[in-house]
Amino acid sequence: MPEFSRSNHRSLDQLREITLTPGIAPHASGSILAAFGDTRVICAATVDKKAPRWMVQQGIPGGWITAEYSMLPYSTLDRKMRDSTRGKVEGRSMEIQRLIGRSLRAVANLKKLPGMSIWIDCDVLQADGGTRTAAITGAYVAARLAVEKLMAEGKLAESPFIDSVAAVSAGIYRNEELLDLDYVEDRDAAADFNIVMTGSGQFVEVQGSGEEASFSREQLDSLLDLGRKGIAELTVLQNRVIEDSILSKD
Amino acid sequence: MPEFSRSNHRSLDQLREITLTPGIAPHASGSILAAFGDTRVICAATVDKKAPRWMVQQGIPGGWITAEYSMLPYSTLDRKMRDSTRGKVEGRSMEIQRLIGRSLRAVANLKKLPGMSIWIDCDVLQADGGTRTAAITGAYVAARLAVEKLMAEGKLAESPFIDSVAAVSAGIYRNEELLDLDYVEDRDAAADFNIVMTGSGQFVEVQGSGEEASFSREQLDSLLDLGRKGIAELTVLQNRVIEDSILSKD
Amino acid sequence: MPEFSRSNHRSLDQLREITLTPGIAPHASGSILAAFGDTRVICAATVDKKAPRWMVQQGIPGGWITAEYSMLPYSTLDRKMRDSTRGKVEGRSMEIQRLIGRSLRAVANLKKLPGMSIWIDCDVLQADGGTRTAAITGAYVAARLAVEKLMAEGKLAESPFIDSVAAVSAGIYRNEELLDLDYVEDRDAAADFNIVMTGSGQFVEVQGSGEEASFSREQLDSLLDLGRKGIAELTVLQNRVIEDSILSKD
Amino acid sequence: MPEFSRSNHRSLDQLREITLTPGIAPHASGSILAAFGDTRVICAATVDKKAPRWMVQQGIPGGWITAEYSMLPYSTLDRKMRDSTRGKVEGRSMEIQRLIGRSLRAVANLKKLPGMSIWIDCDVLQADGGTRTAAITGAYVAARLAVEKLMAEGKLAESPFIDSVAAVSAGIYRNEELLDLDYVEDRDAAADFNIVMTGSGQFVEVQGSGEEASFSREQLDSLLDLGRKGIAELTVLQNRVIEDSILSKD
Amino acid sequence: MPEFSRSNHRSLDQLREITLTPGIAPHASGSILAAFGDTRVICAATVDKKAPRWMVQQGIPGGWITAEYSMLPYSTLDRKMRDSTRGKVEGRSMEIQRLIGRSLRAVANLKKLPGMSIWIDCDVLQADGGTRTAAITGAYVAARLAVEKLMAEGKLAESPFIDSVAAVSAGIYRNEELLDLDYVEDRDAAADFNIVMTGSGQFVEVQGSGEEASFSREQLDSLLDLGRKGIAELTVLQNRVIEDSILSKD
Amino acid sequence: MPEFSRSNHRSLDQLREITLTPGIAPHASGSILAAFGDTRVICAATVDKKAPRWMVQQGIPGGWITAEYSMLPYSTLDRKMRDSTRGKVEGRSMEIQRLIGRSLRAVANLKKLPGMSIWIDCDVLQADGGTRTAAITGAYVAARLAVEKLMAEGKLAESPFIDSVAAVSAGIYRNEELLDLDYVEDRDAAADFNIVMTGSGQFVEVQGSGEEASFSREQLDSLLDLGRKGIAELTVLQNRVIEDSILSKD
Repeated sequence: MPEFSRSNHRSLDQLREITLTPGIAPHASGSILAAFGDTRVICAATVDKKAPRWMVQQGIPGGWITAEYSMLPYSTLDRKMRDSTRGKVEGRSMEIQRLIGRSLRAVANLKKLPGMSIWIDCDVLQADGGTRTAAITGAYVAARLAVEKLMAEGKLAESPFIDSVAAVSAGIYRNEELLDLDYVEDRDAAADFNIVMTGSGQFVEVQGSGEEASFSREQLDSLLDLGRKGIAELTVLQNRVIEDSILSKD
Repeated sequence: MPEFSRSNHRSLDQLREITLTPGIAPHASGSILAAFGDTRVICAATVDKKAPRWMVQQGIPGGWITAEYSMLPYSTLDRKMRDSTRGKVEGRSMEIQRLIGRSLRAVANLKKLPGMSIWIDCDVLQADGGTRTAAITGAYVAARLAVEKLMAEGKLAESPFIDSVAAVSAGIYRNEELLDLDYVEDRDAAADFNIVMTGSGQFVEVQGSGEEASFSREQLDSLLDLGRKGIAELTVLQNRVIEDSILSKD
Repeated sequence: MPEFSRSNHRSLDQLREITLTPGIAPHASGSILAAFGDTRVICAATVDKKAPRWMVQQGIPGGWITAEYSMLPYSTLDRKMRDSTRGKVEGRSMEIQRLIGRSLRAVANLKKLPGMSIWIDCDVLQADGGTRTAAITGAYVAARLAVEKLMAEGKLAESPFIDSVAAVSAGIYRNEELLDLDYVEDRDAAADFNIVMTGSGQFVEVQGSGEEASFSREQLDSLLDLGRKGIAELTVLQNRVIEDSILSKD
Repeated sequence: MPEFSRSNHRSLDQLREITLTPGIAPHASGSILAAFGDTRVICAATVDKKAPRWMVQQGIPGGWITAEYSMLPYSTLDRKMRDSTRGKVEGRSMEIQRLIGRSLRAVANLKKLPGMSIWIDCDVLQADGGTRTAAITGAYVAARLAVEKLMAEGKLAESPFIDSVAAVSAGIYRNEELLDLDYVEDRDAAADFNIVMTGSGQFVEVQGSGEEASFSREQLDSLLDLGRKGIAELTVLQNRVIEDSILSKD
Repeated sequence: MPEFSRSNHRSLDQLREITLTPGIAPHASGSILAAFGDTRVICAATVDKKAPRWMVQQGIPGGWITAEYSMLPYSTLDRKMRDSTRGKVEGRSMEIQRLIGRSLRAVANLKKLPGMSIWIDCDVLQADGGTRTAAITGAYVAARLAVEKLMAEGKLAESPFIDSVAAVSAGIYRNEELLDLDYVEDRDAAADFNIVMTGSGQFVEVQGSGEEASFSREQLDSLLDLGRKGIAELTVLQNRVIEDSILSKD
Repeated sequence: MPEFSRSNHRSLDQLREITLTPGIAPHASGSILAAFGDTRVICAATVDKKAPRWMVQQGIPGGWITAEYSMLPYSTLDRKMRDSTRGKVEGRSMEIQRLIGRSLRAVANLKKLPGMSIWIDCDVLQADGGTRTAAITGAYVAARLAVEKLMAEGKLAESPFIDSVAAVSAGIYRNEELLDLDYVEDRDAAADFNIVMTGSGQFVEVQGSGEEASFSREQLDSLLDLGRKGIAELTVLQNRVIEDSILSKD
């Protein structure tokens, strides 16, 4: 038993309350408001009817999925300056948007997106730890909804997705391994992992960092086990939202 | 009688359905999701406990209110590139955020914000015409909610606001004067006005432009009359939301 | 009778001394040094023998007129940092150059500029209030001179201009309505309007702003009347300069 | 036995030829040319006699270690455009320099760098896969040499380093797990890990990515084992270079 | 006798018509419109009542003279894009403004500008070759007029200038050595020199470049002789304008 | 006899120890580490199999040679901020890279580089005065090695180079004329020349600047004589390295 208690009486291996609400951005082809506790991220998928220029120039067939991530200025307790005011995208935001893009491409057959680009935009409305994992989890659902819409409109023959993908964090806090850290836990964690896995239980990305500290192989193994548990639960939620959404269209 | 009908059977001098929903961004001091029909704008007010550097350097007493405006990439039917990707804020966005800031300062006594800055962020979630007028109308409410919160916390002695402010568009479309244009009406309008007025019926800003055309003094007068009517209705709504919000805190 | 006197014994509805001197920039197709009292703006029109890329890509026939505005560093009493040093164009400059461009396009039939772009550059040599109205008034003459030159050289069949355009400011200062404010009047004005009208008396743009204050409908009406009077006088001057210039070429 | 052979007859769990040559940049306080086979990276540590501004402003005691990473234009077979020409640092370079900085700080007690900043610059002279792991491995040695110099000059009481740090890659290529991938292996790898560990065998960072694919827990375990083996060998080399360098100064 | 004739029947060692007209920018402390034939440059000196930050921080006594150079968009026959639109100052402009600044500082005792900065802005109104030499020649006069004004106002005890400075070009064109090249001569010159000298006949800068060609020592000597002759004439003109300007103030 | 002695007992007209070491950057087509005493510059030539876009657009036959110059952050005793961090290339770096490019093009027949671009990158590893002259001297050799490689591979019919080119500095220090100034001499020099000459003794560039001072014609003549002597010696070294390198390939 740890000597501390998590907010909302969470156990160490318990996710925060997760909701995936469709329709936040009606002009997008698919959109989800993804909430992991108080962390809320707008995930929107828009479709561009052309492949990126570099694919065309290099003669690569198929299409592309890419992502942009941003924290809205009022998502943090102290207002965060806009990237556009600063004049450049922060290194942290770039890392995260590259991760979101790779995660979605890992479960997609890009050849089945002929001459198309799917843009995934993730804008953090409220930040309380784990924004990148909420973003990936919501982004997959938004992208699937966009794909379903394209198929329903006859613009796409079949889905490029061969599996689902979700993400969760795990970390070492006061010497205990925890699942899905909130902001306070994350800030004081001795190590912090972001784990991205498919619905079928394969790893897509593992990014773990001793926050100016280091960690053992045993700790690493425990964190990966926590991640696997959390992602299995997220996968169930993702599938339910996608199915409900498809049914409501029929 | 015009030879066309407006969507949702609106009459020429009728506002779209207006909603001002508080609480969209809980980390902000005050926030409103402002909807003018299908146009939806997140308006969030955050408070910085210092006056801007230029006021301090020039020894100007009091505080400041400033605004930033942005269209989220998925707010338009074709995805809009982010300003941060383009590397600079668009001229149009700059114009609009300067207008929002001036409008709020016109009804504030900045001396009553000693050593404080209020940031108003307006992010368009869905664009269907009139985003700047929805932004100003929501921004005032968000700013008022932030001020009420500061006063309730004992951080501010009295409200700097001496009047309310709201905005609406009016334009000439197919030779008729219309109130509160949606995207299609705005796109094809021969002239387009944005009118900003106080709750007490004074003008704050009048910006009218013949869209590569020109207009007569009589037309201008009719548009100003439409604006006055719309703003009177918006003022009622603003006051109701502010009162409800204050009551629910007691 | 107001309790103050304007410089040079101007009456409230009197323009400053206006001069429009052609030939300041001989390499341009048309150029004017426009002076409104001590405000002096270089206005130069250059012609690019191709339509802008976006028109070509979207298959829009005709040509384009666009403007750039800048204050030279020594135009103000305290030296003004160059935009190129600051790394970006100021919001205020962008607003003004967009206004100049719209104003000229409002009196032009762009279809009669096949495959051409007219660039209007306005550089402020000395700033004493009303630089944007001097810029618009001079820009129209510079553009007309460029068009006359193109026609004389057989490169353009007929003028794209269907009317003339000029601009003037009007504002409320010490509770009186004034025409054509100089820097000191503008700085302390309670409200400030820029009015753009055609030679035939139609409005093109009306931009009025309570400078952190508000104004009544009656005041607004008086300011529009002043603007109409001033622009009628400016139109006479513009026409005289254009005619003289054409005659001297014969 | 795999169905392919690695260049230079390397076995699957064998490092490339590693050399760490001191003195490449004599004006730096410590410098190393780190070679992992044909990958060669200049690693230079320079010391700034002040803590970064944000530490001073927030009143945080001690000092800081930060890193910058860049690929020289001639490091790749096709010339790589400079970041300064492109006008911004690439997302990939930012990710890598943030990783190098975190890795060094993980083995340092920053309180023992009072009022100092150590800059680690890593410039890739020749790129053949694994530039970030060569950079981290060389960066630690360069930083240690700088610290030894500061101590020898009496400018630092004791070393801030509490452990050593090194990095190596491991990946899945043609269904086999490989240590220390070269460019061709990395380009075609199904999964690619970068592993950063201390000399005492603790993990600092684990970054693994299925390159548009996914991988199992068993594969992940094998890759971590390979990393541990490689880093143990790199640690021996690092210590030897540091000792030789200290001895030669006596 | 050369086989070609220069425009306006100039002999090989003859300057173009030179005029230095004061007062072009009345808000500057000193201003000159410098014309070398059809090359016309606005030169304006403005005074900032503080030394640059780097001098203050390094504790260097005295003041500074610096310059900025720009070609106005309509100065060339094909419109030249603004640096502010391009987002950065061109390499060529930077070279020239650094040269102007060095040239003026070479004849100034900066210790006699206590706590002051003189900004020299040179904006080319019309370019026909030799803009940098016209700029330097005019800049010295503008700076002197600013200094005289400061002295007349009692803000400066004595002039920092210990000599005058002027500049001229010389080049090899169709195998002949020419003084003060116009645009056509410069464009086709085999070698092109810019020579900056003091009124007392000392050299300040010599910049000569074989334009993708090379030149002999004998040719170099002839070009330096031409430069000396031209600068002696320019010095006479500079002194006359300064004296006239001082007299007219008395 | 001067009243000071140069480091390493150099006489006034003696070069520092010069070495030109090939092969520093194996992925480049030709590369040299050029050392003038403690000044060390990486010079690398890479070949792009297309002419620059502006040549193609203007229909100019042949190819192009261009250069980029940068000081590595650890090349100076105080760390130098990267241009990419600063967001723009320094004016000084731009001047130098334009000089390097012009110098190489002056000895090349660009028509003999059909559809090719040679990029010369010069990165300063250690700066002790004269980095631009070391860069030019090394750049020529790197470019020649790249050309020889292209010819050996049958990708180029004949060398575009019609002469060799080298550079050296000369200056006035404590009233004496000196060849090849090191950092301390350069910093305190009253005048500083960079002289670029061909192997056959023609001048390519002469850039001399009184460092906030001026100099006489006699001094100028002496400095040119010193330059000529130094370049003759550098030419011998360049030829030897090129010949050795070609022989070793046979």
